[in-house]
Amino acid sequence: MSSDSSIAAVFSQRLDRIRARLEATGTDAVLLSVGPDLPWLIGYDAMPLERLTMLVVPVDATPTLVIPAFEVPRVVERPDLFTIEGWGETEDPITKVVSALSGSARLAVGDHTWSRFLVDLQHVLPEACWIRGAEIIGPLRSVKDEAEIAALQRAADGVDRVAHALRTGEIPLIGRSEADVSAELSRRIIAEGHAKVNFAIVASGPNAASPHHHASDKIIQPGEVVLCDFGGTTAEPHGEPGYCSDITRCVYTGKPPAEFQEAFDHLLEAQAMAVRASVIGVSGASVDKVARDRLAEAGLDQWFLHRLGHGIGVEEHEDPYLVSTNAEPLANGNAFSIEPGFYIAGKWGARIEDIVVATVDGPRSLNRIGHDLAVVEA
Amino acid sequence: MSSDSSIAAVFSQRLDRIRARLEATGTDAVLLSVGPDLPWLIGYDAMPLERLTMLVVPVDATPTLVIPAFEVPRVVERPDLFTIEGWGETEDPITKVVSALSGSARLAVGDHTWSRFLVDLQHVLPEACWIRGAEIIGPLRSVKDEAEIAALQRAADGVDRVAHALRTGEIPLIGRSEADVSAELSRRIIAEGHAKVNFAIVASGPNAASPHHHASDKIIQPGEVVLCDFGGTTAEPHGEPGYCSDITRCVYTGKPPAEFQEAFDHLLEAQAMAVRASVIGVSGASVDKVARDRLAEAGLDQWFLHRLGHGIGVEEHEDPYLVSTNAEPLANGNAFSIEPGFYIAGKWGARIEDIVVATVDGPRSLNRIGHDLAVVEA
Repeated sequence: MSSDSSIAAVFSQRLDRIRARLEATGTDAVLLSVGPDLPWLIGYDAMPLERLTMLVVPVDATPTLVIPAFEVPRVVERPDLFTIEGWGETEDPITKVVSALSGSARLAVGDHTWSRFLVDLQHVLPEACWIRGAEIIGPLRSVKDEAEIAALQRAADGVDRVAHALRTGEIPLIGRSEADVSAELSRRIIAEGHAKVNFAIVASGPNAASPHHHASDKIIQPGEVVLCDFGGTTAEPHGEPGYCSDITRCVYTGKPPAEFQEAFDHLLEAQAMAVRASVIGVSGASVDKVARDRLAEAGLDQWFLHRLGHGIGVEEHEDPYLVSTNAEPLANGNAFSIEPGFYIAGKWGARIEDIVVATVDGPRSLNRIGHDLAVVEA
Repeated sequence: MSSDSSIAAVFSQRLDRIRARLEATGTDAVLLSVGPDLPWLIGYDAMPLERLTMLVVPVDATPTLVIPAFEVPRVVERPDLFTIEGWGETEDPITKVVSALSGSARLAVGDHTWSRFLVDLQHVLPEACWIRGAEIIGPLRSVKDEAEIAALQRAADGVDRVAHALRTGEIPLIGRSEADVSAELSRRIIAEGHAKVNFAIVASGPNAASPHHHASDKIIQPGEVVLCDFGGTTAEPHGEPGYCSDITRCVYTGKPPAEFQEAFDHLLEAQAMAVRASVIGVSGASVDKVARDRLAEAGLDQWFLHRLGHGIGVEEHEDPYLVSTNAEPLANGNAFSIEPGFYIAGKWGARIEDIVVATVDGPRSLNRIGHDLAVVEA
């Protein structure tokens, strides 16, 4: 994707695939609002506000973008792809959404759409049967094309450089607060070509035992593990949507105790084994099991509290999920995280995470920076 | 609010008021997920991810916080107020939400809740009637207590200082890109006690004619209007929710043309008149009309493309709305923006915005920095 006309062709193909899937599933339309579906589909990011923006994609008619009238100037008009229907401040946008439908027996609604709008639509369309938007769009978004994989690679390269600075001690840790380090990671993520930071977890010592710990005021001490899990969404030209990065690396502030080093080395092997197991046709559940079984050999599986991974693309977490309940086989072009960990409350924790793409040549890890436990000194 | 025990008492009162309103409206429960309701009610901000976090508040039973098991450490436990129900990675959170209900004939769902979760709940509870969460919580959140008004005042003071730097030329404009100025505004908003920036619109010259213009790469020239509309959410201690700021000021890079100055002076008067009209008992529609009528006298009403204002609190935009369709009278403790503007496509635009509280002593403007068109030179 390198020009506005080529991204327009991509958007057009995506709309065609959505209409084909609506047809195949007997769904009359999909209705998309805030969240990553719209940027992926037409390059427009709806404002997350009480004024409704909604793209109506009927199975058999031109899509309509219902949008606050004064936000119309923000939209790149693509009359070949969709019609724009602005609504004034005293008009009812729900009426305009309903008018854009050609049928309403079965409707899909974008996963992130605010419930207040779904409630309003249901009051006007009491007979409609509603399904998740992801049932239509999920299988399309989860298979990345070459340009999307290239964008994910650029995102991964950016956070790899930040991880390198962390591992080499270029980013000081000891004596700084987690929040301060998190802010530095955030600045570097932006400097590496991201439009925004999605998260920058810095969890030191016992805090590393909480997988979704936020950076706190705690000062990082010598002799602690520091778990850093960070990522953002890339800035792209030509109205293209941004793609996400997501990486986790651990460093130790001083020589790690043998007990931790040993556990970490098991984790390192479990993560590498799971990456190698991520081949087309293997289920998400099977890959999860590879890491879990390897950790079980070391008695660490009881501390592996979460699923192995999640799909990634225009959204940080999306299909496919690598979890014991997902029997779906991996497909060519699926992109996902492989991120086993162990978390021992009150003591410490660790996680290693890469983004991996399933390809016909086997699994390709987009993150290539070292995975081992880097030791940094004061 | 100055200690954890006093904020706990506030949360307890809010839960009581919600239960009373559920009772009064014949609603069995309200279900709250992502967005500002949860921080306002229990001091917890749900992660906007595919793993469901949902507080179930039944009319007649203890609330239950259904949350991913490994995010439980992030929650400040308040067993007097709610029970925590963690769900494991292979469990179904929807089942846990349903178990926490004591009745499900009529249910309210938080406005920002992702539709995917409402769809899932509706498949399990096909007979339930659903209403917007705001029907329960909106009228409670829209009436601010003294501590909330104090928090809004601190937020306003912070952005007033940023606006002062803008008006005095301390923040250079000419020769910089809108995006660069927006980034500086954002840094200053954080430095002034906000935890996050919600928006920092910088719209120069013709861009000022788009009310929701984002800062672009356009370089600010001499002889242009620069419209800046910015705000964030404050950082508060003790698990208290943050409160929002929102201000708009315009500066001119050089001496403004008489035509613009004249139009701006009409806007200045329209804004001040609307602030003065914001008294308890007057409807949102009436206040909107005051500004609109004053602009009509100058022939500018055709360019006033949006409603006059929106409520503000833990959320940037909330009840009450100052719009011609809102006949509800303003209540003591309502806090809202007063922000008339004019937008002439291809040419220029302007807006002036303050946050105002309706009090028994009359309208109180929280923003006190000068409103007139400041002139800055290179």
